[in-house]
Amino acid sequence: MGRGTVTKPLKVALLGAGVVGSQVARIIVDQGGTLESRIGRRLELVGVGVRNLDVPRPGIDPELLTDDLDGLVSRGDLDVVIELIGGIEPARGLVLKAIGHGASIVTANKAMLADDLGALSAAARDNGVDLYYEAAVAGAIPIIRPLRESLVGDEITEVMGIVNGTTNFILDKMVTDGVSFADALAEAQELGYAEADPTADVEGHDAAAKAAILAGLAFHTEVRGSEVFSEGITEVTPGDIAAAEQMGCTIKLVAIAKLTDDDRIIVKVHPAMVANKHPLASVSGAYNAIFVNSREAGELMFLGAGAGGNPTASAVMGDVVTVARNRARGTAGHFSPAYTRRQVAPIGESSAQFYVSFDVVDRPGILAKCAAVFGKHNVSLRVVQQSYLDDTRADGFPARLGIMTHQTLESQLAQVIDELEDADFVGSGVRVMRVEGF
Amino acid sequence: MGRGTVTKPLKVALLGAGVVGSQVARIIVDQGGTLESRIGRRLELVGVGVRNLDVPRPGIDPELLTDDLDGLVSRGDLDVVIELIGGIEPARGLVLKAIGHGASIVTANKAMLADDLGALSAAARDNGVDLYYEAAVAGAIPIIRPLRESLVGDEITEVMGIVNGTTNFILDKMVTDGVSFADALAEAQELGYAEADPTADVEGHDAAAKAAILAGLAFHTEVRGSEVFSEGITEVTPGDIAAAEQMGCTIKLVAIAKLTDDDRIIVKVHPAMVANKHPLASVSGAYNAIFVNSREAGELMFLGAGAGGNPTASAVMGDVVTVARNRARGTAGHFSPAYTRRQVAPIGESSAQFYVSFDVVDRPGILAKCAAVFGKHNVSLRVVQQSYLDDTRADGFPARLGIMTHQTLESQLAQVIDELEDADFVGSGVRVMRVEGF
Repeated sequence: MGRGTVTKPLKVALLGAGVVGSQVARIIVDQGGTLESRIGRRLELVGVGVRNLDVPRPGIDPELLTDDLDGLVSRGDLDVVIELIGGIEPARGLVLKAIGHGASIVTANKAMLADDLGALSAAARDNGVDLYYEAAVAGAIPIIRPLRESLVGDEITEVMGIVNGTTNFILDKMVTDGVSFADALAEAQELGYAEADPTADVEGHDAAAKAAILAGLAFHTEVRGSEVFSEGITEVTPGDIAAAEQMGCTIKLVAIAKLTDDDRIIVKVHPAMVANKHPLASVSGAYNAIFVNSREAGELMFLGAGAGGNPTASAVMGDVVTVARNRARGTAGHFSPAYTRRQVAPIGESSAQFYVSFDVVDRPGILAKCAAVFGKHNVSLRVVQQSYLDDTRADGFPARLGIMTHQTLESQLAQVIDELEDADFVGSGVRVMRVEGF
Repeated sequence: MGRGTVTKPLKVALLGAGVVGSQVARIIVDQGGTLESRIGRRLELVGVGVRNLDVPRPGIDPELLTDDLDGLVSRGDLDVVIELIGGIEPARGLVLKAIGHGASIVTANKAMLADDLGALSAAARDNGVDLYYEAAVAGAIPIIRPLRESLVGDEITEVMGIVNGTTNFILDKMVTDGVSFADALAEAQELGYAEADPTADVEGHDAAAKAAILAGLAFHTEVRGSEVFSEGITEVTPGDIAAAEQMGCTIKLVAIAKLTDDDRIIVKVHPAMVANKHPLASVSGAYNAIFVNSREAGELMFLGAGAGGNPTASAVMGDVVTVARNRARGTAGHFSPAYTRRQVAPIGESSAQFYVSFDVVDRPGILAKCAAVFGKHNVSLRVVQQSYLDDTRADGFPARLGIMTHQTLESQLAQVIDELEDADFVGSGVRVMRVEGF
């Protein structure tokens, strides 16, 4: 594979030259020799599609830049197209066109994949090309390949992770500085950890897209982002943070996908009080971590940088080498046929532990009355804490109850909450948070 | 791929029906339908080679058992041979024979791979078959695929891990129960965590074989187990354990492979005082954990069950599905050509931090004398602790010095130790341990 080799290079086009794309372009050019020895063929970057040609792109040969992305993917001689523009359209259209012209695809686009991985996989299969997307979930952490291949002889029962660095940073800030969500978000935006429009991150949509991809791979079925129950962190208060601390927990935005007893799946994203003894509780800042439970292998954990140009570029380049190797050998890699048709169960049929806190009047027998509400709906209690807030409070609800339940159905807990909110002995503002790791 | 399919099944032979093999046989038979939908072809277990036909093998069809392993791998119609007998011979001969007859190989045999992965890979490549060995290192933890594929577009700089559960269990016992190495080993043997002949584990040979495999994959070169510097845990004393605790560390047997500045590699296995703040320090019992540092991705961690029948069988089956999928498509998977010829540097040229403790006479100026010995050999000090042992001691060395160095060359530290051991103001029994995680 040295200088004497005369095999044709593999032609690569890059769509998007932002934080990740610019690093990918740099690696392809700077590490050309190394990549050639790993692939057996040279990679030739033949075009970089960008939206705006006026933005300076240091490190990228200006000759390669084009704003005609459609023309670029339609050249017909491309071996690999790396899609890093993000969002559903025009990314999906460009990817499908590239596939139609026989190019293998490497993408980090979780929104596009979560919207319709099934159709994209089918197009890749029908055209005999590869579709790889290690970078779409948890940045540099190798999680797609382990799910697609390493664990494919096993039965995965649950995947749980912290897959969004922005919300992890914000929740960290709320814990360490005791600030409100709004203040922590403002700081995250100042530091560039959150976007000007933070909706996708803080409302949990980004994590939901990743949860859909993980669930689909883990359970061999199609899951769309829109099927994922998603609750963001915008409603988390400093009071919730303090209550979590008191219970020996840290609040994290978790993504969970699990198999139910009746072979359906639960896929959900929500803030949760995570027991401090659980490794996920100490995953801080921009780190991501994913737990996988399976029947034979037991518990596995994967930890690493969840975002950023270089870590994401590492994952992209791993895929580029893999699909280029396949290309060099005239084959295409593994498809993960979603051969089961597992239903996503409604959130009400999901079980969880909950922490419920509310203020009550200070009268004999109140604790019994509250406990009876839980009991009536078959929700059993694990920990009950009562504290006295302030006897000068004028609202008439000076005592606070903090109750951690055992595993219970979401729908049953909802009935408990409804009844508590209607009870005259309970003050307004019942707080509910799911609990993990006990 | 349903009942209507008439494609021929893929023929699988299993060598070894012990703790792991029996689980693999069970999964192939019990999960036949699931595996078929994941592969696209049915797996047919056509033979199980064992040493002793008289041992009962519950769950395995007696018709399949044979003690003619040579005949089994020479059938000529095998698609996959799963080698789980361990050890170098006859395993290597059987694997080479199976490859010669066109079968793809899945193995968990780290001793065989560490002895000569290069020759086995070449044989597989020359015969157009696969050689997969995820289960050879760290049980169920997917680490081979991430190194072979996910990180192949990146430059790995260091791999560090706890890859031997037996020694981890013994060291845990020494910490929690305050017992000697011998007592902890005896308990491990009673509980089945250590073998009757524990040499391979406690002398670090098992970890060294795994380190060789990891180093070869991480740095794209050939590394033999015999090239790995290896120091076991048999000399670790309760005093070392106590000293580690005092320094905020836990003693672990670590396997380390890293790139030097001059593009050679260091591969070593030894007990180390690991800073308690480092995640490796809290990896306990039968768990394994591996850290990977790379230029683009930064730090990644993989954690999971490092041994045991079911976890190891999970890793084996992931490989079986992968090679069977390749087989079904008429291709063979990725080879990892060891295309570089990186030298393994001698241990003396390796750098580490050290903790050195020794007893000294109680005279003015002794600390300065000791410090001068370190300074003379360019070893700079990070932490110095002096304690008074017992003024009634008759040996004349009542003060103990515990010194943690900065990063220093092994060869320089060795000179310091030689000089300390010769000094009349230092008592016998200078203790040295490497330090990681600061």
